[in-house]
Amino acid sequence: MSSDDLLTTLSRTPIAKQFGLPTVPKLRRHSPGDPLLAGPVLVTSVGDGRFAKPITAFVEEQGQNAVTEPGEEKLHGVVVDLSGATTLADLAAAQQILSPAVKKLGPSGRLLLLGAEPSGASGAEAAAVAQSLEGLIRSIGKELRFGATANLLVVDGDAAPSAVDSSVRFFLSARSAYVDGQVVHVGVPVGPTLDPAEVDDPRGEERPLAGRVAVVTGAARGIGAAIADTLARDGASVVAVDVPAAGEGLARTANRIGGTALQLDITADDAPQRLLDHLAERHGGVDLVVHNAGITRDKLLANMTEDRWNSVLAVNLGAQLTINEALLAPGSPLRDAGRIVCVSSQSGIAGNRGQTNYASSKAGVIGMVRAMAPRFAERGATINAVAPGFIETEMTGRMPIGTREAGRRVNSLKQGGLPVDVAETIGWLGRAESGGLNGQVVRVCGQSMLGA
Amino acid sequence: MSSDDLLTTLSRTPIAKQFGLPTVPKLRRHSPGDPLLAGPVLVTSVGDGRFAKPITAFVEEQGQNAVTEPGEEKLHGVVVDLSGATTLADLAAAQQILSPAVKKLGPSGRLLLLGAEPSGASGAEAAAVAQSLEGLIRSIGKELRFGATANLLVVDGDAAPSAVDSSVRFFLSARSAYVDGQVVHVGVPVGPTLDPAEVDDPRGEERPLAGRVAVVTGAARGIGAAIADTLARDGASVVAVDVPAAGEGLARTANRIGGTALQLDITADDAPQRLLDHLAERHGGVDLVVHNAGITRDKLLANMTEDRWNSVLAVNLGAQLTINEALLAPGSPLRDAGRIVCVSSQSGIAGNRGQTNYASSKAGVIGMVRAMAPRFAERGATINAVAPGFIETEMTGRMPIGTREAGRRVNSLKQGGLPVDVAETIGWLGRAESGGLNGQVVRVCGQSMLGA
Repeated sequence: MSSDDLLTTLSRTPIAKQFGLPTVPKLRRHSPGDPLLAGPVLVTSVGDGRFAKPITAFVEEQGQNAVTEPGEEKLHGVVVDLSGATTLADLAAAQQILSPAVKKLGPSGRLLLLGAEPSGASGAEAAAVAQSLEGLIRSIGKELRFGATANLLVVDGDAAPSAVDSSVRFFLSARSAYVDGQVVHVGVPVGPTLDPAEVDDPRGEERPLAGRVAVVTGAARGIGAAIADTLARDGASVVAVDVPAAGEGLARTANRIGGTALQLDITADDAPQRLLDHLAERHGGVDLVVHNAGITRDKLLANMTEDRWNSVLAVNLGAQLTINEALLAPGSPLRDAGRIVCVSSQSGIAGNRGQTNYASSKAGVIGMVRAMAPRFAERGATINAVAPGFIETEMTGRMPIGTREAGRRVNSLKQGGLPVDVAETIGWLGRAESGGLNGQVVRVCGQSMLGA
Repeated sequence: MSSDDLLTTLSRTPIAKQFGLPTVPKLRRHSPGDPLLAGPVLVTSVGDGRFAKPITAFVEEQGQNAVTEPGEEKLHGVVVDLSGATTLADLAAAQQILSPAVKKLGPSGRLLLLGAEPSGASGAEAAAVAQSLEGLIRSIGKELRFGATANLLVVDGDAAPSAVDSSVRFFLSARSAYVDGQVVHVGVPVGPTLDPAEVDDPRGEERPLAGRVAVVTGAARGIGAAIADTLARDGASVVAVDVPAAGEGLARTANRIGGTALQLDITADDAPQRLLDHLAERHGGVDLVVHNAGITRDKLLANMTEDRWNSVLAVNLGAQLTINEALLAPGSPLRDAGRIVCVSSQSGIAGNRGQTNYASSKAGVIGMVRAMAPRFAERGATINAVAPGFIETEMTGRMPIGTREAGRRVNSLKQGGLPVDVAETIGWLGRAESGGLNGQVVRVCGQSMLGA
């Protein structure tokens, strides 16, 4: 490890407070009415890629030029289909494409690679090449500047090109502003197949959740409120849920978005039934369930109390488990193309000092998501998780300034994310067209340097 | 994320140079003749654990007390078998055991959890609980002080208790000094079964590689030389390999350990055949192959040349691929209980700025290891990888002081590792008794904060 990046970050952080902060790139974020693409996109492939052609067509439908080599103009994005790359020679060819291309990537530019599943590769060299793309994309993410991101879609060999549509749109768009350095696996879509006519409708792209009923727990404030706002902006009818004690904030959220409010302690024994009854009776069913409610009760393990442990596990994991089991039960109001999105955390991946309870609960969410993915698939539904890194909220606002400033800076985008960044990611996973994403954990962390 | 640890590390690092460094814990390392255990070990279980009993017996065989509750005396280790933990209540019981136990853990103490495979769990709650242990152990690793470590063995439900023996020995011993915050999966052992009589022989524990032929590439200096030294110390006959230009260092290594030297450019077309012929003719076969040779040619991707890319990929990945294919071919000199250990890198997991070529090669090694694991298993052999973090070598010694100091500090042990730490880990994976470890990637990084 010889990371100049690390040095830069570490040496700047505490001193920055005294000598002025280095420039933080302004991230382009989605605003209704904005075009999806802000400039030309380089689209090409190495080997027998099947994605370059449909992605080229998509770029042109969006009114932008799809080019195969960098020119004078700054690029909005660079998409290289490496799903057919199987040899070290193919990988070398990718480098020859990428080196000149990254020089032309504009601010908040998007680098997106598509690769094959290493586990499905025929032969060790092909598996090595497929896996090497993780090291490549994560290094590129650490090199790009001015808010540009780098991500990798690993696509199952049996998945049709359309399986990646919603993911390509997300990663090329401003909606993915704070998702960087991530590897997302796309499989054969579960449930009803995508209707291309609907997706190609620009209004559909602006309001991709139109007609869908979404429930969001912990919606009174913070990230939960932003999720409710964003899903409503994208067309969903939102049921905002929070504990009775947060009733005022909950009402504010519901009124702001024209949704409904449901006061509910999700850890109560009858909570799953009350929630599902509400969804069935008042909304005729549910399409998207966002398990956002969560609490922290930090303490070193040596001083951890049973109460602090149990309350965190009950809210952050236990409630998700019981509600999901209810959603899987026969006669549940979960509709076709149902989507469950669970909020995990970077702490559940990397661990965190003082958070044995919180990290255990959030790692547990990941285990639950993976275990339940095949069961939801049987019902034509999916379950995924988002794992936020440092997000600017009231909670992080109360941190000591040093901790907060450090937390903000130790990522490739050199800043904390916003609640809307988590919400946009949930919106993508919540789309009916995202049936190829199941059992995934997507970090929303600006490529935090912290990990496992 | 609200990491005091992060703050501490970040705020101390650059200032430490000016105001004196915080105390760095001295890690206990293995020295021939030392007892394996330095004090009593707490061994207990939650649920239907099958490991507590044999581990208790092992502790007592080593001449130490196995206790089930912390007493007055400092503990050498804490081992909690959670392989039978399936409910949130079980997890809460684990917290009740661990909170008082960690207070009594001595310097360079060892916390080791055993858990079930989340993918094999019956039901989502059990899967969540199994996965939660990752968040738990990684948080504990970040809380422990004075060189204590925390690791998790995830054991296949079909594996006999003896499958974990070599791993329990490694993680409880001083050999694992710099392996921290890791999750290692143990399966049903491949190949010849373990002979308990041999393992219980104290001389066997001192010279666990006696009678085995090991080849180490890149053995002229640095980590490779330490690997050769350590494997020889543990009883192996070592074939030290390096390029002809490094002949002098190579001869020094071979003479120091009473091994043989083989000058070989591992990227040459005839290298696999020459190597295998040498092993067959001069040594009658090979038991352990350590792919350590590697190079760096750092440059930002925008300025990367074809030559820098190709040379790094050829040495770090291409040569491993061709030699491994030769080892898998019919008639290869690889013997029963053969062990292949490949050196990957933290950069292959987390990516690194300026290292798109190196990180791609080291991620590729991980893909290769996973793809080849079932093929080596068919031959009664295993293939695994170690992924070093910041290791003190000539190479890191040439880093600018700021980068070096930062690299050393951003891990739970607050220091860089030593080449011997990588070597000890390879020795563990190289033991005949380690047949339950296959396709694994073990980081040797002191629980580096950097990850994916």
